[in-house]
This record gives sequence, structure tokens and C-alpha cells, in this order.
Amino acid sequence: TQQRQHVELTNTLQKWGDSFGVTLESLEFAKRMDAVDPLRDIRDNFTFPTMKDLPCVDQSLVENLDEECIYLCGNSLGLKPKRADAYQQDVLNCWGKLGVFTHFTGRFPAAQCDLLVKESLVKLVGAGHSDEVVCMNGLSVNIHLLLISFYRPTANRYKIMIEGHSFPSDRYAVVSQLKLHGYTEEDGLVILQTRTGEHLLRTEDILAAIQEHGQSVAVVFLSGVHYYTGQKFDIETITKSGQAQGCLVGWDLAHAAGNTELKLHDWSVDFACWCSYKYLNSGAGCIAGAFIHRKHHQDDRPRLCGWWSNREETRFDMQHSVDAAPGADAYRLCNPPPALVALHKAGLEIFEEAGMDRLLAKQYLLTGYLEYLMDHLDPDAGETGDEKFVEIITPRDPRQRGTQLSVMFPFSVKEIHEKLEKRGVVCDVRLPSVMRLAPTASYNTFTDVYRFFTVLKQVMMECRM
Amino acid sequence: TQQRQHVELTNTLQKWGDSFGVTLESLEFAKRMDAVDPLRDIRDNFTFPTMKDLPCVDQSLVENLDEECIYLCGNSLGLKPKRADAYQQDVLNCWGKLGVFTHFTGRFPAAQCDLLVKESLVKLVGAGHSDEVVCMNGLSVNIHLLLISFYRPTANRYKIMIEGHSFPSDRYAVVSQLKLHGYTEEDGLVILQTRTGEHLLRTEDILAAIQEHGQSVAVVFLSGVHYYTGQKFDIETITKSGQAQGCLVGWDLAHAAGNTELKLHDWSVDFACWCSYKYLNSGAGCIAGAFIHRKHHQDDRPRLCGWWSNREETRFDMQHSVDAAPGADAYRLCNPPPALVALHKAGLEIFEEAGMDRLLAKQYLLTGYLEYLMDHLDPDAGETGDEKFVEIITPRDPRQRGTQLSVMFPFSVKEIHEKLEKRGVVCDVRLPSVMRLAPTASYNTFTDVYRFFTVLKQVMMECRM
Ligand SMILES: Cc1ncc(COP(=O)(O)O)c(C=O)c1O
Ligand SMILES: Cc1ncc(COP(=O)(O)O)c(C=O)c1O
Repeated sequence: TQQRQHVELTNTLQKWGDSFGVTLESLEFAKRMDAVDPLRDIRDNFTFPTMKDLPCVDQSLVENLDEECIYLCGNSLGLKPKRADAYQQDVLNCWGKLGVFTHFTGRFPAAQCDLLVKESLVKLVGAGHSDEVVCMNGLSVNIHLLLISFYRPTANRYKIMIEGHSFPSDRYAVVSQLKLHGYTEEDGLVILQTRTGEHLLRTEDILAAIQEHGQSVAVVFLSGVHYYTGQKFDIETITKSGQAQGCLVGWDLAHAAGNTELKLHDWSVDFACWCSYKYLNSGAGCIAGAFIHRKHHQDDRPRLCGWWSNREETRFDMQHSVDAAPGADAYRLCNPPPALVALHKAGLEIFEEAGMDRLLAKQYLLTGYLEYLMDHLDPDAGETGDEKFVEIITPRDPRQRGTQLSVMFPFSVKEIHEKLEKRGVVCDVRLPSVMRLAPTASYNTFTDVYRFFTVLKQVMMECRM
Repeated sequence: TQQRQHVELTNTLQKWGDSFGVTLESLEFAKRMDAVDPLRDIRDNFTFPTMKDLPCVDQSLVENLDEECIYLCGNSLGLKPKRADAYQQDVLNCWGKLGVFTHFTGRFPAAQCDLLVKESLVKLVGAGHSDEVVCMNGLSVNIHLLLISFYRPTANRYKIMIEGHSFPSDRYAVVSQLKLHGYTEEDGLVILQTRTGEHLLRTEDILAAIQEHGQSVAVVFLSGVHYYTGQKFDIETITKSGQAQGCLVGWDLAHAAGNTELKLHDWSVDFACWCSYKYLNSGAGCIAGAFIHRKHHQDDRPRLCGWWSNREETRFDMQHSVDAAPGADAYRLCNPPPALVALHKAGLEIFEEAGMDRLLAKQYLLTGYLEYLMDHLDPDAGETGDEKFVEIITPRDPRQRGTQLSVMFPFSVKEIHEKLEKRGVVCDVRLPSVMRLAPTASYNTFTDVYRFFTVLKQVMMECRM
């Protein structure tokens, strides 16, 4: 059925092509797809870097320097929502005009600003209640705050399950938590590994590992969408399976938030966290988020506290003990920065306006289209031997991925990346050998994907010579 | 000698008055002091709220609505440096123009932006080396990151010494750390208390408590300047005394950074942290800082890690283990937000331009002047009985305070505060009974202090009727 999903997607694209009377490899197809895209106008909400501004562009290789670049890097840093400027200026003006009164006045009252994005986050991650989400800190800080509370090792259950190719920050965080409790990396980690020769973790293997090791595992901590392969994990199934073994199951949704459908409450996820600067377009290092399921709100687990853990109503009574804010808000420590929340809100509003359903519907076609073109990159495919071809390691089943496709090349990925950058393509490479391509539904067009395809063809040709 | 310091300050002011041929109670004095103030021009670097913009001003009570308000609230939120707008726009433009290339390009390269303020922080807190300071997160987060590493309780030494009227966030943080390790608040806290009827902690009492309890105390954690009383503690003496008992000694410098001279390295302080939105004028919730003394850089104490704990040079090698950044930088977890660092830098540059020495020299006179006027508020002083007078609880010895004076009134402090606010004074009240007044050397004038004095006189008169 995974293959069927892939075929169905290709068929859908083909049907569009047939209805336009053009082939999928034609620029015309991309243009027609853009014309019928119900979200075609939301791109205007973003500032697009142009060819002439990019530091890596070789101006002799680009026809029109005023043209927008081919930005496929939303997996790393989303583009700037135009309204971010006005919102930020609002924060600055309010501070300038009001001084300390900015704490409770204006569009982004500093002391309450984090609450302004709560409802959007609820929808985005599928929280059941607004008290299940909180906007605070950076992602890696939140990983730690959550693990401090949810990783409570006992003599028999002290391990943390991660996957073998997890993002460094997650691994460093988890290992430092193990050490905090006196465990070693060797003893304390249960590492999910792909089968030899495979790039993706099979769900069946994850479930088997949970079955095998679950009784000694305190926390299963995985990524919703894998930063390297683009694989989306079956959060619901894995969560249930971990919980059946008595583990707590937490998710790093850095690459999943704004990029996949999430139903954290219904899936009974124990806790989760994410950053906002990738698909949520909030800007580098911007404020992050966390989810704590309602079932844990009355827990007496330890929790790090600060004055923002206190309910707003009694915070300035300055009592000696915390009068805890409801739910996830109790995990806050510091007064929030309106300068970051304003940026976050600028990005989230566009999600509200576009609607997650429509974004996901577009993403399905957009990534499918990129996949199709990558598969048809080489006219000699099948004749000159597999090793000469581009390999997409991301799952072919669209239900098992978000927008990102991770590809491997028969040439040095660094070299290809440089050549692409010279021609105005923005995408990134992750060691050892993958290029990540993320056509982002909120601002990329089918034409962007087509333009990428033509540039890549040139580059591959050059490499082959 | 404390009294002598106070008298010396008053004499200095008197001498200025004599040289101008005016009394200290005259507006003329303030104007002449402003005229000779070598820092008089740096006020122009800040946006001052005007009377008409403040939500609490009663327009019928204020003569000139276009006049600047009387802002004495730098202890809570510093004013906006005008250049903050341009710096912030720079960050936004760079993101818009360059997308992901903003990480390594422009005035605030996102991935390295925190390093831009390092040298200023070194000077500000008296670090010996740039690897002793780090700019990251919010203050309460940093308190926790530091305590995770530096609070390592053992069976015999597991207590934390704080003071009885510590800022709620600090107390909540410390207590949650105790609980994390299985200790109770009752057992785990050693609380420094003032003597009955006194507002200030005596250094001799702190030293005696350290002497008495030191052997069971793992960490002494105090404020450099007390948020409520304005008392500045003798960091050097207390640190040495704690260390002599085998304790680690850490300082919360929220109210000390930018407000007092600090020599953390020479004083051998183990660790410290601060926020940047008070005297450093970076804006609400802005990025905070921490200091870790070099003597602890090679410790094998546990430390929470993220990818930003890794050295920049090898960070993107994405290795399984942290290749730790040198010194305090290893305590970083997340990629930093340029939108906050830009604001922080805007504020710090003004400190560089003004020079801390000159700022402190001005502060000495400015706070001394406020003190003098408060002491001469009531012409009936001494005749109608003490209980009718304003009491300054902050130390009279200028070496034992920063800019803030904390005062208690013979009337409801809330009522006085409301009346002051209606007339364009911005200052704050902390429960149970103190008004905090912080004439800030970077932007306040002697005339501001004088204007406050005249308004307060009116208000007191009203209250007396
Ligand atoms: C002494 C002290 N500690 C901690 C804090 C809490 O700061 P944040 O909200 O930045 O964590 C403050 C804020 O005013 C403070 O004055
Ligand atoms: C999966 C994952 N975890 C953690 C991080 C680290 O994020 P931060 O620097 O915001 O803490 C990232 C950033 O790309 C990520 O993709």
C-alpha cells in the first residue's frame, strides 16, 4: 500500500497534466499548476531573496539578477513574513513610547505576549486544550526542561531510547541528561538502528525494539520528522507501543511542526517540543514551543520553576511558593520576549489564513512533483546503471514524509551544492551525504520546483563531463 | 565609616551647590548639575515616553503633555536605545534578503550573533577572559542551567543558602532544584534573615551564617543588588567566606549588571547570571547572560548540552559526542536569536560609549541628590514625629547600593504610586510596602530627579489632607 500511495500521487499529477494537455516535464505544467493553486497568493506574504543578494550566486551564471532565488530551504530557516517588520516595529514603538507600561499595553503586551500565539499552536500540534501548549525559550532548552520532569530514572527503568542518526542537539541533550543521573551513554541509551544498507527506520523494527527493551526504558524520545532522511514517523503507533511497555514517549517536532498533521492530544503523546524558525517562519533562534498532555498536569513530578511558572493573577504577590499556572504554562520560567513572539505571530497568522488542510494538500502535490522530476532527471535512467542516478532516500509513500526530500547523488554532494548555489538555488547539505530539498507550501510554487529541476539538470550534466 | 561616606556625598553635592550659588532644593541646582554633567548628551540615545502617551497620566494634572515623563523605572525596564530600531530592521532586512544565509552574513550573523556582545559583557561584569561570559536564554533559565552544574549535593553538603526576601524567581528556582534532588524546602534551604526591625542584611550576619552553616551548604546563591531594598552586597567578602567553608558561591546580578562595578573574575566568584532588560536597556524578556569562572572550565561537573555547546568549528560535523566549546560557551544549548542580540547590542554600545566609570560617577551624585531631596521632603521633619516621614531603607552608604533607592511612606504606597503615575512619574512598587526609585545614569537628569521631588511633594501634601 505504500507503493500504491506513491502511484496514486503520480497519477494525480498525471491527471492534472492530461487536463492541461501538457507533460509533467514541461514548464507549462508548473505554470498551470500555480494558476490553479488555491494558495498561490500567500507567497506574497513573504520576502523572497533575489539572485543579486545571495552571497554564493555567480552573477555570470544567472540570467536575471532581479529574479527571486529558488528557495528550497524552509527545512532550515523559513522565509520572512513581510508583516514581521510592522509587528517588530510595533514592539519597538510600544517600548519607546511606554517604557515599562509596555508590559501590559499594546498589541504585544510584553508580560502576556506568549499567550497570543497559544491558540495557533493548539491547532498546529493538535492539542486538546490551550493549557497543553506553551511558547517559551529555545528548542534545546525545552528538551531539557521536559526531560528534567519526564525522565525520572529508576533502578530498573533508566534508559532513553533514541534513534542512531538523531539530530546532534537531541543526542547531546539526552546524553547529558543520562550523565546528570549518573548513567553512561553506553549503558543508558537504547539506539534504534536502520537495517544494514537501509536509510529509513522501519516502524516494525521500532516496535520490536520497544517490545524488546521497553521494560528498561524510561523515555522514548524521537523526532516526528527526521532531519536527515525526511522520514515521518508514525507518532501514534509508536507512542502507544512505548506506553504499553510503561515508557513515557516524547517527540521533537522541529521538522514536523507546520509540516505535517499533528494530533498530539488524541495520540496521547506525553510531551513534545519544537522550534519555530523552520516551517513556521519566525526567524533564526526564535522562541520555541512545548506540549504537555493533560494527563500529566496533575502529576507530582519535579519541575524546574521560575516566577513565570506562577499564575498570572498572583505572580506579583511575590509569595515564597509557586502558585502554579495551569498546565504547560507552569513550565515557563522567564518573562517572555515580545520581540520574538511578534515574529512568531507574524508567521503563525499566515498558517491561520492559509489553513493547515490546504497547506498539506498543496504540499502533497508540490513534493510529489519534485519527486517526479527527480525521478525523471536523467534521460538515460535505467540504461547507464543505478549508481549514476540520484537517489531519494525519503519515503516514497507521501504519508510517511513531510515536504522535505533528502537526496543522494552519484557525485560529491558538496560539489553539486556549490554549483546549485552559484545558480541561485538555496538548499542545504547534511553530512555525510544528503542534500535536503524542501519545497514549502506556504511560499514555494510549482514553478520554483521546475526551475530547480532545470538548474539541477545543467549541474548534473556539468558533473558528468 | 558608612555614615562618613554618606556625609561625604552630601558635602560633595553641597559644594556643587555653593559653587553655583544655589541651594540643593532649587530647580537651578538641577539645571546647573545637568549642564556640567559630562554624560548629559547620552540621554539623546534613548526614546523617552512623553506624558501624553502614558496610560496612567491624568491629562488634567499635567501641564505640558508633550513633555517627557519622569522615568525612574530603569530597575524594572530600561528605556529604548534609539538605535535599537535600526539594528532590528537590519536583522529583519538581512533575513528577508538572504534567507538562510543570514546565519553567516551581515551585521548580526544569526549563528554567531551572541559573540558580538561578549567583549562588552566581559567589561561589564569584570570577567578576566572572554571565555568566562556567555550571552544566552533568559535569566531564570540560566539560573537553572548553572545550578544543574554547580549544585551537586552530597549527603553532608546539600543545602542552598539564599536570603529570606529573595526575588521569587530565584527562590522558586532554588527550591525546585532542591526538590529535583529529593530535598525539601524546609531541610534544604538556609535562609539569611534580617534582624528584627531591620530591613537590610548585615554583612557580619551573612558571614556568621556562613560560618555556622557553611559545612552543610553546597551553594550560596544571593543577589548582587537586592531587588527590594536596593542593598548591594559585598560580593567579594561573601564569596571568599563561602568558599572558605567549601561552598560554591553564585550571584544573581539582575539588579547589579550595569548598575555597579563588578569584578567577578578577581573576586573569584564561581558563577553568576543576569538579565539585560533593566539597566542594560535591551527590552522586555531580552537575552540574558552568565559568567563561569575559569577555574571551573576544566571541571568534570555535569552540564546540560545542546548543539550550541559544541565548538563552532566542528558543530556541523554532527558528531555523536559534544566537542565542547571553550569555557562558558559550552553552557549554550540553542542557536541564538539575532532579534534579541541586536537589541542587547544597542544597549551595550551606549555603555561602551559612556564608559562605566563615568556612569558610576554620575550615578553617585544622581542617587545622592535624590536621597538628599527625599530627606528634605518635609519641612516639618523632626517636629511632627518620625512616623509621618518617608523612610529610605536602602543603605545610606553609597558603596552599599546602586542607583535604586527603596522608600517607605507613612501612607499607602499604592495610593501614592497611583497619584504619582497620574502626574507622569514612572516608578514601581513591590509588595508589601516599598516604592523603588531608580534614577538611571544613562538617561536620567538631575532635573528629572528634581521634577520627581516636586511632584512627590504635591502628592504627599494631598495625602496629608
Ligand atoms: C533578582 C531577579 N531574579 C530573577 C528575575 C527573573 O527574570 P527572568 O524573567 O528574566 O527570568 C528577576 C527579574 O526581575 C530579578 O530581578
Ligand atoms: C531535530 C532538531 N532538534 C534540535 C534542534 C536544535 O534547535 P535549537 O538550536 O533551536 O535548540 C534542531 C535544529 O535544527 C533540530 O532540527
